[in-house]
Amino acid sequence: MVIVMGPDAAPADIEAIVETIGAAGGEAFVSRGVSRTIIGLVGDVAQFSALDLRGMRGVADVMRVTAPYKLVSRDNHPERSTIRVGGVPIGPGTVTLIAGPCAVETPQQTLEAAEMAKAAGATLLRGGAYKPRTSPYAFQGLGEAGLRILADVREQTGLPIVTEVVDAHDVELVASYADMLQIGTRNAQNFALLQAVGGVGKPVMLKRGMNATIEEWLMAAEYIAQRGNLDIVLCERGIRTFETATRNTLDVSAVPVAQRLSHLPVIVDPSHSGGRRDLVLPLTRAAIAVGADGVIIDVHPHPEQALCDGPQALVDGDLDELARVIREFPPLVGRTAAGDALASA
Amino acid sequence: MVIVMGPDAAPADIEAIVETIGAAGGEAFVSRGVSRTIIGLVGDVAQFSALDLRGMRGVADVMRVTAPYKLVSRDNHPERSTIRVGGVPIGPGTVTLIAGPCAVETPQQTLEAAEMAKAAGATLLRGGAYKPRTSPYAFQGLGEAGLRILADVREQTGLPIVTEVVDAHDVELVASYADMLQIGTRNAQNFALLQAVGGVGKPVMLKRGMNATIEEWLMAAEYIAQRGNLDIVLCERGIRTFETATRNTLDVSAVPVAQRLSHLPVIVDPSHSGGRRDLVLPLTRAAIAVGADGVIIDVHPHPEQALCDGPQALVDGDLDELARVIREFPPLVGRTAAGDALASA
Amino acid sequence: MVIVMGPDAAPADIEAIVETIGAAGGEAFVSRGVSRTIIGLVGDVAQFSALDLRGMRGVADVMRVTAPYKLVSRDNHPERSTIRVGGVPIGPGTVTLIAGPCAVETPQQTLEAAEMAKAAGATLLRGGAYKPRTSPYAFQGLGEAGLRILADVREQTGLPIVTEVVDAHDVELVASYADMLQIGTRNAQNFALLQAVGGVGKPVMLKRGMNATIEEWLMAAEYIAQRGNLDIVLCERGIRTFETATRNTLDVSAVPVAQRLSHLPVIVDPSHSGGRRDLVLPLTRAAIAVGADGVIIDVHPHPEQALCDGPQALVDGDLDELARVIREFPPLVGRTAAGDALASA
Amino acid sequence: MVIVMGPDAAPADIEAIVETIGAAGGEAFVSRGVSRTIIGLVGDVAQFSALDLRGMRGVADVMRVTAPYKLVSRDNHPERSTIRVGGVPIGPGTVTLIAGPCAVETPQQTLEAAEMAKAAGATLLRGGAYKPRTSPYAFQGLGEAGLRILADVREQTGLPIVTEVVDAHDVELVASYADMLQIGTRNAQNFALLQAVGGVGKPVMLKRGMNATIEEWLMAAEYIAQRGNLDIVLCERGIRTFETATRNTLDVSAVPVAQRLSHLPVIVDPSHSGGRRDLVLPLTRAAIAVGADGVIIDVHPHPEQALCDGPQALVDGDLDELARVIREFPPLVGRTAAGDALASA
Repeated sequence: MVIVMGPDAAPADIEAIVETIGAAGGEAFVSRGVSRTIIGLVGDVAQFSALDLRGMRGVADVMRVTAPYKLVSRDNHPERSTIRVGGVPIGPGTVTLIAGPCAVETPQQTLEAAEMAKAAGATLLRGGAYKPRTSPYAFQGLGEAGLRILADVREQTGLPIVTEVVDAHDVELVASYADMLQIGTRNAQNFALLQAVGGVGKPVMLKRGMNATIEEWLMAAEYIAQRGNLDIVLCERGIRTFETATRNTLDVSAVPVAQRLSHLPVIVDPSHSGGRRDLVLPLTRAAIAVGADGVIIDVHPHPEQALCDGPQALVDGDLDELARVIREFPPLVGRTAAGDALASA
Repeated sequence: MVIVMGPDAAPADIEAIVETIGAAGGEAFVSRGVSRTIIGLVGDVAQFSALDLRGMRGVADVMRVTAPYKLVSRDNHPERSTIRVGGVPIGPGTVTLIAGPCAVETPQQTLEAAEMAKAAGATLLRGGAYKPRTSPYAFQGLGEAGLRILADVREQTGLPIVTEVVDAHDVELVASYADMLQIGTRNAQNFALLQAVGGVGKPVMLKRGMNATIEEWLMAAEYIAQRGNLDIVLCERGIRTFETATRNTLDVSAVPVAQRLSHLPVIVDPSHSGGRRDLVLPLTRAAIAVGADGVIIDVHPHPEQALCDGPQALVDGDLDELARVIREFPPLVGRTAAGDALASA
Repeated sequence: MVIVMGPDAAPADIEAIVETIGAAGGEAFVSRGVSRTIIGLVGDVAQFSALDLRGMRGVADVMRVTAPYKLVSRDNHPERSTIRVGGVPIGPGTVTLIAGPCAVETPQQTLEAAEMAKAAGATLLRGGAYKPRTSPYAFQGLGEAGLRILADVREQTGLPIVTEVVDAHDVELVASYADMLQIGTRNAQNFALLQAVGGVGKPVMLKRGMNATIEEWLMAAEYIAQRGNLDIVLCERGIRTFETATRNTLDVSAVPVAQRLSHLPVIVDPSHSGGRRDLVLPLTRAAIAVGADGVIIDVHPHPEQALCDGPQALVDGDLDELARVIREFPPLVGRTAAGDALASA
Repeated sequence: MVIVMGPDAAPADIEAIVETIGAAGGEAFVSRGVSRTIIGLVGDVAQFSALDLRGMRGVADVMRVTAPYKLVSRDNHPERSTIRVGGVPIGPGTVTLIAGPCAVETPQQTLEAAEMAKAAGATLLRGGAYKPRTSPYAFQGLGEAGLRILADVREQTGLPIVTEVVDAHDVELVASYADMLQIGTRNAQNFALLQAVGGVGKPVMLKRGMNATIEEWLMAAEYIAQRGNLDIVLCERGIRTFETATRNTLDVSAVPVAQRLSHLPVIVDPSHSGGRRDLVLPLTRAAIAVGADGVIIDVHPHPEQALCDGPQALVDGDLDELARVIREFPPLVGRTAAGDALASA
């Protein structure tokens, strides 16, 4: 950390800080400039954070210089990680397509969506049995019945399944069915839930909070990692901005930025960020081009009857183009589509 | 709802919509303009929402015209509500001061903070035993031991207690100690938790999500109300914007706006919105002046030793001015300070 | 400035920076921590800014520690300034009410609005002759004819006038009529215009850009000051956020923050921030309570016929309450209403 | 427009609106629902906007249903436009690379940058002679001397030039040198400047305001178009959000959204949006993949000596990869690189 003293800080103010830091087991280096004095702190940052350094006499600003996350940081783990979900890799060499219905509604709808997904090149099936909805009057998902449908469809299609968990106390149940647990954007700082998925032996896909900075997103991942689970895939899904033409604003820059700060894979959700079917394919292309390790996409056999987010689901006519994008774009960024990676394995 | 057709919509497109709405049990009124046709829908909005109306041929836009919340809306409950917490009113006639330490650390610190709070005019004690922290390495609260300290301090000071709950499965435990449950900004869309506090017989203070629109905040309240608990106090605590000089941006306009849309009381947290001690008193004055039904403020006897948010806690020297503000401002907005309301009762 | 080196920075990288800074006429102090090395820079910051320090080997971050504005900063001018506009003070001892129509439409409408303003306690008259409108098809103002109307109404009412200028080449013309020039939010980074008003001998009211940080707002003021005009009043008028219930989000915290950083007076525009008549009085109370040096408010005798922003103008029925607020709130923050200040002078 | 009446609107309130609209020369269609009445308005929207409809008794909301821009809208001009700049096309069939230094500093630096640009596939040269800078103490550009350098470099390289204009009264001068005028993000609502470039016979590149919605961006273009100049290229350059890891947040979704609403070409500036060299290539790939009609990129032979935005300029080592991206990505979105388009012409 660095403490910047105000222009009117007295020598005694500076001494007081040096003593406080020393008492906390750290060391303070004082650099006296013409108009300002700067004090560099060396030691355990977590300990310094608890001190009210900003409240001390003469202090103008306190700045952190190291990342507050450790386990997910690339500082100590320079090589980018590959996470395997039921054998399917998500990582720097591939582009993984995860697709399926937003919500599991019926066995028939889920199977049809899974077959659409597979035909487009998907190697993992998404589908929600527990749906966090803004309105208490909206469809909240089928619960365990939905998990059973997903398990049946996995049986029929061979696609491992990714599904959301919304309550810490459902984690074991959901993990008993799922190949990968999903934490949604509204739970991105539900720390009880993050800790719970940290204690279970299944990979986790962590969506970025729609209001989370990249640093907060990595801190949320650190919560999971700190409980012993490092099989985490980060998912950018749009942030909240002033623009209303799209549901959220897909922050494509976050993909290379997060990949540079963390060794974890980063994928993109082009369906929920825009909230509009006509944006899904352009944003999928942008996601792969910017360097995402995968994309997760809503498909639905009959979106006009969907119980959740029908307006953004891709339909049959879009899937040929999705398949083409998944096939043709990865080589241009030095990757293979995960489907081809499996096929050639 | 209103459907706006595109300039090139065909008569058959309009007919298709009229039929779809009819089939869903509603009625559609068509207004043909020079360049656009508008279709007004009458019937059960929740049902129409599930339809992919935007995806139908010729549709340019679909707009909602009624609020999606019902129980917390002023439409059906025009009079503003007063909620009582251990006998203390929060509502349109008073300005209630809730104060105390951000986190319960020791019995001594909590008692001292409570006495500071009471001296400044507080009629309710705040204090956190479960702390949702951005970093897994930060102090997470004392848990039930903290609740016991709060209960003891209530005994000693007579102040009813407000404390946060962060996990649905702790709700009963926390409710067995607390006079009012607090839902924090990071859990503002943790629907499992909202439903759990909806099922318990204690008042709830619901902080606005830092990225929540006022409508989403009211929808979160509706989740609680829908489970049978209408003793809800809304708390504005700053929203996330591009400005970095303050931790968040206190949205004072949200107070009169939410009071006009909902019958629930609305209070303000000037400590967490700014995150800076020097802003707490100015923002407290602004909150009362704009018409808030109360304020919730961090105080700490020794903020330089605080384990959480020390930099924003008011200290001894500030409390005389806080007391003056709590005494002098309410009459200018036609209210009494809640302390005086109790004293004169 | 402070340079934070990455964890893998080599000694040679650090030396290279020390040399570069030395060559630029500065001095570099190196603090070696356990995981990071920090380099404090002393010298002319403007010169360092031009260097691509971030691009140098081993550099992780570069942080500025002094404000980039000088003339408007309180660092070198600790006492807060009072600006006089046609004899009316705006500054720390008073609360000045500026009121009038959003746009000058007719002599009659302007005079009626001015009389409404005066009756409510206004000591300065606002009114726009040049209107920057989002749509080219909207009323753009009367131009010089509007300025003549304002001058006539000043004659009749004795109220000095505040009016907007939107083009650098109109500055002299507008200044020949106006007592204070206004720079609108859309021109807050129109540097040609800022420089032009810096060269004219009339006070300037500088609205905050709706997307400007407080620092950028002060830098815009520095543009004016640097040309020799320090008679600047800052005006907070709401920032753009994700919330759509109000036109913009009034950032009341910006008032004390800007007052702490700069010696210039800071006023608030409660009319344009909310864009809704029902919010003007609550936000006016909040502005005075938070410590604003004045408020600027739209009034209109017949808002239903207004050519610009009718929905936010106060009407006759609101003015008694405005007068009460302007009279009763200033004493609670240790100020007098500017009208009383003049009356007692 | 559509007027939504409140639940307690009286029949007389509805009649009053019908009469008001009739008096304004329009027609009102009333749809009575169970809880709400909706009134659709037909006629001249600009005229209705001036009415204080929101202020009328019983009105709950007023919603616009047609776009407020006409000349740039695709409604009346369904085919997407191609703009030619000194013979170089920008439009739906091509991907145009515009590159060059952020600021013109010397003839040598400008020529070297232009040759780097050309080698990477650029067919247009960018370079600023007038620089809008946040600080008045920063380099403000060479002015007309810079324009002369650009003209000389055009002579030497054959690249038509794109350069910024920041003051309405410089428009003729700049237009006498430039092949295309650029309006920067800070002037995106400088209406005097927009009107001035609307009156000159040169193509205009209009950057999106960093706080502008897509609709406001198109309204700014309408200002130019309304003066008779329809040779406008829109440029997405990042919007301001809460994220601080990047200078601004590139809104890639805005490209397909704007292309659907307007017939004008849309390009992307990946240099200024991120403000970081390491993001320029990933964001360039994303821009082309999402469907942009071109990109505009900063290059500099010696960014460590640049007087402006050195940290984001591409350097020699990056240019081979830029050239590859410009060559290989366009075919995947059904386009040719503009350079190839010229070569094959």
